[in-house]
Amino acid sequence: MSKKDIPYKIYLSESELPTQWYNIRADMKNKPAPLLNPGTLEPMTLEELSVVFCTELAKQELDDTTPYIDIPEELMDFYRMYRPSPLIRAYCLEEKLGTPAHIYYKFEGNNTSGSHKLNSAIAQAYYAKKQGLKGVTTETGAGQWGTALSMACSYLGIDCKVFMVKVSYEQKPFRREVMRTFGASATPSPSPDTNVGREILEKFPGTTGSLGCAISEAVEAAVSTEGYRYVLGSVLSQVLLHQSIVGLETKAALDKYGVKPDIIIGCAGGGSNLGGLIAPFMGEKLRGEADYEIIAVEPASCPSFTRGVYAYDFCDTGKVCPLAKMYTLGSGFIPAPNHAGGLRYHGMSSALSQLYHDGYMSARAVSQTSVFEAGEQFCRVEGILPAPESNHAIKVAIDEALKCKETGEEKTIVFGLTGTGYFDMTAYEKFNTGMMTDSAPTDEELARAFADLPVVNK
Amino acid sequence: MSKKDIPYKIYLSESELPTQWYNIRADMKNKPAPLLNPGTLEPMTLEELSVVFCTELAKQELDDTTPYIDIPEELMDFYRMYRPSPLIRAYCLEEKLGTPAHIYYKFEGNNTSGSHKLNSAIAQAYYAKKQGLKGVTTETGAGQWGTALSMACSYLGIDCKVFMVKVSYEQKPFRREVMRTFGASATPSPSPDTNVGREILEKFPGTTGSLGCAISEAVEAAVSTEGYRYVLGSVLSQVLLHQSIVGLETKAALDKYGVKPDIIIGCAGGGSNLGGLIAPFMGEKLRGEADYEIIAVEPASCPSFTRGVYAYDFCDTGKVCPLAKMYTLGSGFIPAPNHAGGLRYHGMSSALSQLYHDGYMSARAVSQTSVFEAGEQFCRVEGILPAPESNHAIKVAIDEALKCKETGEEKTIVFGLTGTGYFDMTAYEKFNTGMMTDSAPTDEELARAFADLPVVNK
Repeated sequence: MSKKDIPYKIYLSESELPTQWYNIRADMKNKPAPLLNPGTLEPMTLEELSVVFCTELAKQELDDTTPYIDIPEELMDFYRMYRPSPLIRAYCLEEKLGTPAHIYYKFEGNNTSGSHKLNSAIAQAYYAKKQGLKGVTTETGAGQWGTALSMACSYLGIDCKVFMVKVSYEQKPFRREVMRTFGASATPSPSPDTNVGREILEKFPGTTGSLGCAISEAVEAAVSTEGYRYVLGSVLSQVLLHQSIVGLETKAALDKYGVKPDIIIGCAGGGSNLGGLIAPFMGEKLRGEADYEIIAVEPASCPSFTRGVYAYDFCDTGKVCPLAKMYTLGSGFIPAPNHAGGLRYHGMSSALSQLYHDGYMSARAVSQTSVFEAGEQFCRVEGILPAPESNHAIKVAIDEALKCKETGEEKTIVFGLTGTGYFDMTAYEKFNTGMMTDSAPTDEELARAFADLPVVNK
Repeated sequence: MSKKDIPYKIYLSESELPTQWYNIRADMKNKPAPLLNPGTLEPMTLEELSVVFCTELAKQELDDTTPYIDIPEELMDFYRMYRPSPLIRAYCLEEKLGTPAHIYYKFEGNNTSGSHKLNSAIAQAYYAKKQGLKGVTTETGAGQWGTALSMACSYLGIDCKVFMVKVSYEQKPFRREVMRTFGASATPSPSPDTNVGREILEKFPGTTGSLGCAISEAVEAAVSTEGYRYVLGSVLSQVLLHQSIVGLETKAALDKYGVKPDIIIGCAGGGSNLGGLIAPFMGEKLRGEADYEIIAVEPASCPSFTRGVYAYDFCDTGKVCPLAKMYTLGSGFIPAPNHAGGLRYHGMSSALSQLYHDGYMSARAVSQTSVFEAGEQFCRVEGILPAPESNHAIKVAIDEALKCKETGEEKTIVFGLTGTGYFDMTAYEKFNTGMMTDSAPTDEELARAFADLPVVNK
């Protein structure tokens, strides 16, 4: 392979690790719409947000003008343990597909939390500790975020209470146990520990829970416990800020070898991975310095970009959180039970929603069997068993590479490989045994969910 | 952390990746005793070995004079996908322990197979393919080897049949499913598919299987199926040869920063990790060029070095394999059922046995609760959740670092972090809930097992 001038893995040295996060909102002409107080319907103030979030994180949430924000040195120390993450040239996949396209993926699964979620988890835990808090509360669905946060809190020595969607809690005992090994508590949600949880349990005794419900419980637990704040793994602008390190590293690695991508692909649930990966590229696009085709990939069973409406909506089931303007399927929407893995949030990052609305990126919804098929194909040649979420990006990367095969174009495709699938083998088993099925909401279901949108949109 | 002159992670560039394996036997004055034909008790010839192993691997097994063997270019391509692996300076652990010692670990868990086993799996699969074989058979206990081999065979497009110790097959469904995702078949052993398996099932209908029994089945399946050979993940000299890449990279990374280790620590089951990690350091020691303290760590429940005898023994339960001279607990030995994870083989690499016998290294047996305690301590500060096997090395590394704290010595300690513990959360759960127990064979049990040693020793 001496003829190959790009290495299989492009590692940056520690000294090339970005020392600032990039805040995409600073370069947006149309800023994302502000979070609204659900009572007054006025934009949330720093004081109001600081009841729920650490003050420093609330500031980051409101800051849509500062383009670069220094990463504190203590955080850099943690990042240095597992970052820079590798940018990998998928030579083996290219060969297998017989495509002239050049495919790269940014691999974020090389840390024990198993995903990119750690980048924001450690930042949020850090600010909580700096503020002198005892601990944080959060929710987790598929478990990547809860795992990452447990790891971060364990490292910093603060408490971590995770409300885990009940169905995941029961189906993913190993994921739960990783959190416990890191010293966190994991409570199945809905739980009898909160008012919201008790109400929902009373109304729907057999419910297996939802992300929106777990969020409500985690927020309630935070605001009602002295010395605690709530943290969230996606959707928020602060999370996209922290995740920008993924994109900054990707761009630095490509720049090092003079490679300019044509297409950038990321899976999108709440937007943490996609927003982080595309950040510096989107920045160039917004400033008119370069052009890239940017594609968000979402599950057909939870298609907020492709079938949602752009409106203010509740972020949680209990309706205790601020309202966000976003592409949403309605806060009551829950993906069909056969949907595996994450990417199951009803809404989407406000910043990404605005960018999508303004035409800076496109979106595709894909069926989960096609997604697992792509993931298995990838895994057998590239030697990484991807998370179901990552498989969405792989699917569209392969689709685009096969288009290049037809046209003969040598496009450069970059996608985000957000994590590993070690804890998703039940889903792989379903796929391997032909038991996996697809689903998508009907128009009637969506219409019912949209009817529940808050009155502020009228 | 700008004051730190050694990075958190020392990565070698692709061009610094070793292109040859190092064969420790070439530098041994007392060569390891030869494998014996169980029928004639004469040393196994190339022809005889080639019935079981690929011819090229049989040659490597017999070669105790060539110090360096080229890694084929196609293999180098595969290695480049996940190697060089990082050598990590455990700054956070050092700080937590308050030790003046400098601790480094070579992390081999950064590939989807999750462990160092892939280094030899891909080599063995490569030679099988090159010989035009249809596929390979093997056994797996904890599942790391089976996973790695499945991945390697999938990449090269050859068939892979894994006999998995029944208790693991049932307790580790996710591990089994990873193999299936890579396209391999996994059969619980003992199985009705082989003569050996049927015999054992008839004699012990309720047996949960053992590694020795799975080896017998895999060997039988290989020699009785056209176009198949048997491959093994540890114990053999060829495996240590392939694993030498771990040690060569470790040494190259340390040399790059002018660091000379005082103590090198590896866990030892059959010896694949330990033999690979220490290879170039032991070579220097054998040639009188440098001195290192080398420590093998084994479970108190399977203490072949520390409580075994140095004798010829059967490598498998069915007694169909060649005899090997090694430290052994007797081929009938099975660790107590409460023993978690791997490191459960009754014997030990012949080469390492000879080196231990000649006083070039020491060995320690440790209890599993102390091992998991060390692993959890490590995990909370270093952010990697280690495999139970790796926890053995961590335990002794911490012990040595705490000794330095007492004496004030600034020793440099290097240990092998062989893999991640994602598939061992049941064991972690036992530890976390206080349900984990320790065990060690009684002298009477060992005496009974030793009585079964083959007559050649008399």
